[in-house]
Amino acid sequence: MSASSALKTYSLGIDDVADLARGCAFLGSGGGGDPHTTFMEIEAALADGGVIELIDIASLPDDAFVAPCGWIGAPTISVEKLPSGREALQGLRRLEQIAGRRVDAVMPVEVGGSNGLAALLLGIRAGLPVADCDGMGRAFPESQMVIFNIRGQQAAPAILTDDKGNCVVLETVDNVSEERLARAASVILGGSCHLIEYAAFARDMKANALRGTISDALSIGRSIRLARESGRDPFAALFEALKYSRQFDHAGVLFDGKIVDLQRETRNGFSVGRAVIDAFGGGQRLEVEFKNENLIARLNGEVRALVPDIISILDRETAETIVTECLKYGQRVKVVGASAPQALRTAEALAVLGPDAFRLPGPYRSIAELNGWK
Amino acid sequence: MSASSALKTYSLGIDDVADLARGCAFLGSGGGGDPHTTFMEIEAALADGGVIELIDIASLPDDAFVAPCGWIGAPTISVEKLPSGREALQGLRRLEQIAGRRVDAVMPVEVGGSNGLAALLLGIRAGLPVADCDGMGRAFPESQMVIFNIRGQQAAPAILTDDKGNCVVLETVDNVSEERLARAASVILGGSCHLIEYAAFARDMKANALRGTISDALSIGRSIRLARESGRDPFAALFEALKYSRQFDHAGVLFDGKIVDLQRETRNGFSVGRAVIDAFGGGQRLEVEFKNENLIARLNGEVRALVPDIISILDRETAETIVTECLKYGQRVKVVGASAPQALRTAEALAVLGPDAFRLPGPYRSIAELNGWK
Repeated sequence: MSASSALKTYSLGIDDVADLARGCAFLGSGGGGDPHTTFMEIEAALADGGVIELIDIASLPDDAFVAPCGWIGAPTISVEKLPSGREALQGLRRLEQIAGRRVDAVMPVEVGGSNGLAALLLGIRAGLPVADCDGMGRAFPESQMVIFNIRGQQAAPAILTDDKGNCVVLETVDNVSEERLARAASVILGGSCHLIEYAAFARDMKANALRGTISDALSIGRSIRLARESGRDPFAALFEALKYSRQFDHAGVLFDGKIVDLQRETRNGFSVGRAVIDAFGGGQRLEVEFKNENLIARLNGEVRALVPDIISILDRETAETIVTECLKYGQRVKVVGASAPQALRTAEALAVLGPDAFRLPGPYRSIAELNGWK
Repeated sequence: MSASSALKTYSLGIDDVADLARGCAFLGSGGGGDPHTTFMEIEAALADGGVIELIDIASLPDDAFVAPCGWIGAPTISVEKLPSGREALQGLRRLEQIAGRRVDAVMPVEVGGSNGLAALLLGIRAGLPVADCDGMGRAFPESQMVIFNIRGQQAAPAILTDDKGNCVVLETVDNVSEERLARAASVILGGSCHLIEYAAFARDMKANALRGTISDALSIGRSIRLARESGRDPFAALFEALKYSRQFDHAGVLFDGKIVDLQRETRNGFSVGRAVIDAFGGGQRLEVEFKNENLIARLNGEVRALVPDIISILDRETAETIVTECLKYGQRVKVVGASAPQALRTAEALAVLGPDAFRLPGPYRSIAELNGWK
């Protein structure tokens, strides 16, 4: 990563992107899609001379027009349904037509999973910088579960595009209708579509977006890799990276064991299911329920982590995150929890994306409190 | 109805609209929605000084921009969910923004049911003439079942609007995707939305639209009323009106009896069901299956009418059509069949809107052939 301090931009190389992918997968809390396909697309785009320019949102002028982007649909589908590669740019151009002005920067709507990388690919293709921030600091299954909605920004106009060239423009008067329409349309269009939403001026994004989350993800991914390369414990390196991150203050291992049962189905456009993990010595059992993302972890029936805190299932040797659609019976894993960004833990935020929003037993208690972490 | 022959336009009064509503209900083949609510909206708009100007499509310049409009959803829902009255004009203005030009005339996408009147209401509110034509000569449950699709016109951009001010713009590359997206969005938005689609230049509409169908509906409705007022048989008057219509060449009574069983449910955004009608003398039974519209009529198990031919269920005394959502156990009815416009009976058209398209037993045989009508 090379810094250009005058403009406060950084250009990322392919090794940085590989580290970023690893960090995004972790922050995805099991969701946001496996970053692998998007990583390969970026690899090809960089080989073609493309440039990734990361920029601190604070360094953009207030009237810069910023477009959050990502993919909507069930991750189980995105594994098999490849993009055409034209979806994102088509959506961006349509937004520009509607807004009557050019977009100045793109950003991930959610940093988790492949959606943390999708904005980079669009940035390369559009020749635009990527703002180092996002709307969740993780991934969530529904579009309205985003800090922009919590802070009163409008999702509309939202632009949905698919691999065949179809485009749906959602001009909704409320953000829940936007999610429900986008979800229904994504199901009709094959279960995985590109979505640009909550486009706004940098002024609003500076006030509301979760800042530095791309840097945080990059740092997480790099720390894990460097630890492995030097024979150190990658989990210790992960926790150190989280400790010094901008958005994540508590983290730890929730469980160590083997996946002994797995239920997973695609329902109403979501990947829904449950993983059961038994300790190697026997006796102890962790159950993780997910809807695209892991939402709740119960140790022997007792809640140990709850949405919006991050619950990720990692390979216990390499500390590579296994996203929900890649979970398999028999995988040996460590389940890692991390506190959600503070902005997601306010009463206003929890009403939109906390346990109640998923009809899970609440009220929300922080992962630090549930596990006695200092 | 007063003629203005220089401009080839006609202005309609409220009595004309009442006759038109009666004729549209008949041509709806049970669907298109009960015209009652739309009739009342037009009544109020005319009382406010609004003007309905009907125009022969042939008299529009080739480069006039024409917008077909109507409502999408299950008629069972539209009975209870009233419009705000702003949906159609919001959609029209959005189309004009996208097209970068003003619309010169509106028209019904389907003349059947309340959709035959909806264009008149939009014409009043927008101060635009209504072209005397439509895309079906009746009503059909799905958007792609329209002559414009059969002749290769594009549905996109299609503009869906609801009572809350939500707007969805469908920019699809094929017309079946447009239907599927519009249907899914209409379900999310409460089951009944306004839809503008297949907007085109008058050049294309002159070549493809079914011409004179509003006049045909008006003539049907007027004939039934005049017969009733003068003590003559309204069914004989209906058949005479059809005989001298521009689009409908064979018609007759398929059955006379009482509704003895009725199944009706709202499924995937459609009203789906079956009416069973027994003859008064006993022995004979007619079964009518519907999906928004009546699709097939079987006399003692033998097919006597098949989509796209018109199958309408009428009150046996007044010859008022009973649309599918208003059917009730015990109603005494005559079931009337009429041949669909010739343009819907070609091989190309039948592939899109004939029995196969509904997975009904085919191939299509005309109602004249099935009943031995000359």
